[in-house]
Amino acid sequence: MLGRFHSHPAPEILYLSAPMNVETLIHAGWVIPVEPEGVLERHSIAVDAGRIVAIRPTDSARAEYRAENEIDLPGHVLIPGLINAHTHAAMSLMRGLADDLPLMEWLKSHIWPAEARWVSPEFVRDGSQLAMAEMLRSGTTCFNDMYFFPDEVARQAKQAGIRAVVGLIIIDFPTAWAENADEYLHKALEVHDGLRNDTLVTTAFAPHAPYTVSDGPLERVATYAEELDIPVHIHLHETADEINDSVQQFGVRPIERLERIGLVSPRLLAVHMTQLEQDEIERIAAGGAHVAHCPESNLKLASGFCPTAKLLGAGINTALGTDGPASNNDLDLFSEMRTAALLAKGVAGDASALPAAAALRMATLNGARALGLDGVTGSLEPGKAADMVAVRLDDIETSPVYHPLSQLVYAAGRDQVTDVWVAGRHVLRDGELTTIDVEALRARTAEWRKKLGEFD
Amino acid sequence: MLGRFHSHPAPEILYLSAPMNVETLIHAGWVIPVEPEGVLERHSIAVDAGRIVAIRPTDSARAEYRAENEIDLPGHVLIPGLINAHTHAAMSLMRGLADDLPLMEWLKSHIWPAEARWVSPEFVRDGSQLAMAEMLRSGTTCFNDMYFFPDEVARQAKQAGIRAVVGLIIIDFPTAWAENADEYLHKALEVHDGLRNDTLVTTAFAPHAPYTVSDGPLERVATYAEELDIPVHIHLHETADEINDSVQQFGVRPIERLERIGLVSPRLLAVHMTQLEQDEIERIAAGGAHVAHCPESNLKLASGFCPTAKLLGAGINTALGTDGPASNNDLDLFSEMRTAALLAKGVAGDASALPAAAALRMATLNGARALGLDGVTGSLEPGKAADMVAVRLDDIETSPVYHPLSQLVYAAGRDQVTDVWVAGRHVLRDGELTTIDVEALRARTAEWRKKLGEFD
Repeated sequence: MLGRFHSHPAPEILYLSAPMNVETLIHAGWVIPVEPEGVLERHSIAVDAGRIVAIRPTDSARAEYRAENEIDLPGHVLIPGLINAHTHAAMSLMRGLADDLPLMEWLKSHIWPAEARWVSPEFVRDGSQLAMAEMLRSGTTCFNDMYFFPDEVARQAKQAGIRAVVGLIIIDFPTAWAENADEYLHKALEVHDGLRNDTLVTTAFAPHAPYTVSDGPLERVATYAEELDIPVHIHLHETADEINDSVQQFGVRPIERLERIGLVSPRLLAVHMTQLEQDEIERIAAGGAHVAHCPESNLKLASGFCPTAKLLGAGINTALGTDGPASNNDLDLFSEMRTAALLAKGVAGDASALPAAAALRMATLNGARALGLDGVTGSLEPGKAADMVAVRLDDIETSPVYHPLSQLVYAAGRDQVTDVWVAGRHVLRDGELTTIDVEALRARTAEWRKKLGEFD
Repeated sequence: MLGRFHSHPAPEILYLSAPMNVETLIHAGWVIPVEPEGVLERHSIAVDAGRIVAIRPTDSARAEYRAENEIDLPGHVLIPGLINAHTHAAMSLMRGLADDLPLMEWLKSHIWPAEARWVSPEFVRDGSQLAMAEMLRSGTTCFNDMYFFPDEVARQAKQAGIRAVVGLIIIDFPTAWAENADEYLHKALEVHDGLRNDTLVTTAFAPHAPYTVSDGPLERVATYAEELDIPVHIHLHETADEINDSVQQFGVRPIERLERIGLVSPRLLAVHMTQLEQDEIERIAAGGAHVAHCPESNLKLASGFCPTAKLLGAGINTALGTDGPASNNDLDLFSEMRTAALLAKGVAGDASALPAAAALRMATLNGARALGLDGVTGSLEPGKAADMVAVRLDDIETSPVYHPLSQLVYAAGRDQVTDVWVAGRHVLRDGELTTIDVEALRARTAEWRKKLGEFD
């Protein structure tokens, strides 16, 4: 960056070197790259061809770079795009359909009948788009999905310009997506093939849960995941009932069953994990598996408390997810970071557990690692994709600013996200989505409201 | 309302009667009055002279009332103004000053030294105003405060047009506000006297906590509270250490000590209550005392879990508070309602615990009852003050709307509050504060940031 004259001793000579042309140059009050840890004051990010070129003190950046598109955000903090490590995006159409009910009544009397009646490519198209609008507006640039018609989720993600890992769902019973294990696996490979060359959308196997997928398909998932080199995304140890049923049916707890099948490995992303014995934590750590913590869903469904501080203490890479919007009821990772940081303290009985920096890391780089995407996203580092979020901190609600990280996690709201870039594309510009027609989406959502209303 | 012709049989004749003139008529997509429970679709509220005159189906309201100021909010829900049952408003200036620390290190190394150095009428003026701006913007129309210089809090509340119960603070040690028990009590009576005829700002005794106020002053508070007919607002059973210290020093747990002093009565508003045995819950219920639940502060400081569902089950009137913005770190009752509803489910192990309607009631009518203000505010009922909040529900984040109550508690954010009225005064108009100069406030906040920064 010092240009061809860098052997000259006088510093002012540096500014005579020709500035480098880049597409975009953003000057922010603060930059939090996540890796390395810490807060950079008055820094700028240079972006070109969808990637981060450099992060520099603003004074130097103005001298070193020239951009057609130069953006001043002196009251904002720039952070990596947030990564939602577990969701069922299309279920946004069932947000608030039935709340405050015991889990099984909620599923059996409301969610499952509504899904049986209405899940289709159109449902997944509109529900996923509604979810993507909400995610982009709240600073999420990548999500790890588990739902039917993953091909449709992929199509919508590409159109919206949001990074996605679509789940190749496997489940024992027939649905609108497939009839049996063979068809689920066949379609999984088909969807994976179709996305082979995509840079924005990738895949993971998504066997639903140990209690809904039998050993045969799980073993095939283990084999194929190795061959295709993709993650395995599964609900695991979500409730005490799940554990008890597994002991009854298989003689062992679910983690042990997955171990025997060979699924506890660095490919595994285990979601929820509220029911854990100490030796299970150690075995998950030893296996190099990842956890997706979903604190708000665990509370709302009274599933139990994930021992987040213990997981992190054991060296387990722990990411953050919202779960589906029907059990949250939003896709807001700002709220989820805050709940995770607060709840971990309550559960650990230690006010210093899960500090703000750790919560932000869970919602960014840990998510990328869990999805095998940490070479691409999850932190603001030169060479990575420009997945970035600008958050306004000069609002009343986040004043005064002593520590931008504290304000981000404990005081900021999704409404303070003003701009979002995914791979350099400006998908949220001063609060307005540039890739989704919100009015059309709202009209289609109102239609679904009428159809699904009978299940409330 | 049928006018002088109401004996005529034909319904259309009713519309010939002269419509009644009122100051304001608001037509909303939904109205949730809290009392009675339930949701009214397409209803309107007529307001005159600061009070609610009527709540009617919109079609009838248009015929029965005429208003200079008529407001159409078809995508909004109107709810009672939220009531923050426990805060230390001025501490907003210390928001995020020091986070993620054990309680005693946080207090002794950061908060107390900062307070000792800087607390003054000017600090309380600016800090309270910052808090009031945040509260009004997020739909809070009434707050129950505990801090030094309550006369200054009262002055700012009247100016901002927000309803407040200012705490007549009592504490054993000297502060910038008073030197000793006698002076605290003397100043308490003085502040109370100065507000005797105020309709917007009232008072409560606010002995800080059992571990900071000795028996003598507590006995005098019990006597004076009876004489002046005002509540007693105190931190109680917040942490396990508080209980252990009390047993050591007084031979009994704090609730029993307060009972002996005669403070467990319908005047008592006990804040936090995370450490409770079953017989204590029964005694609090029998005494008719109220609880202010502060879930986010309890989590952040790792104080313990308040058994909210049990308290409500025992018939204890349980309200909702944020605690001070230094231990939350906001004054947002939307987030607090959501956390309360989610956490109660996790703690009770029951997904049907604390449903949405109960969370909204805690944040409104229960708060009013706890403060002795339920004749004035806390629900949308004819004759009560027009303390009202309009929340936009047609955003992406709260679509589709199956149940407005679910969306309010589980999906809506403070940013969806567009309009707020306190006693009929339009203090937030389409997102803009009408009583507080936000730019001037921001400048003064930046000054305090410099002064307090040395304590971070």
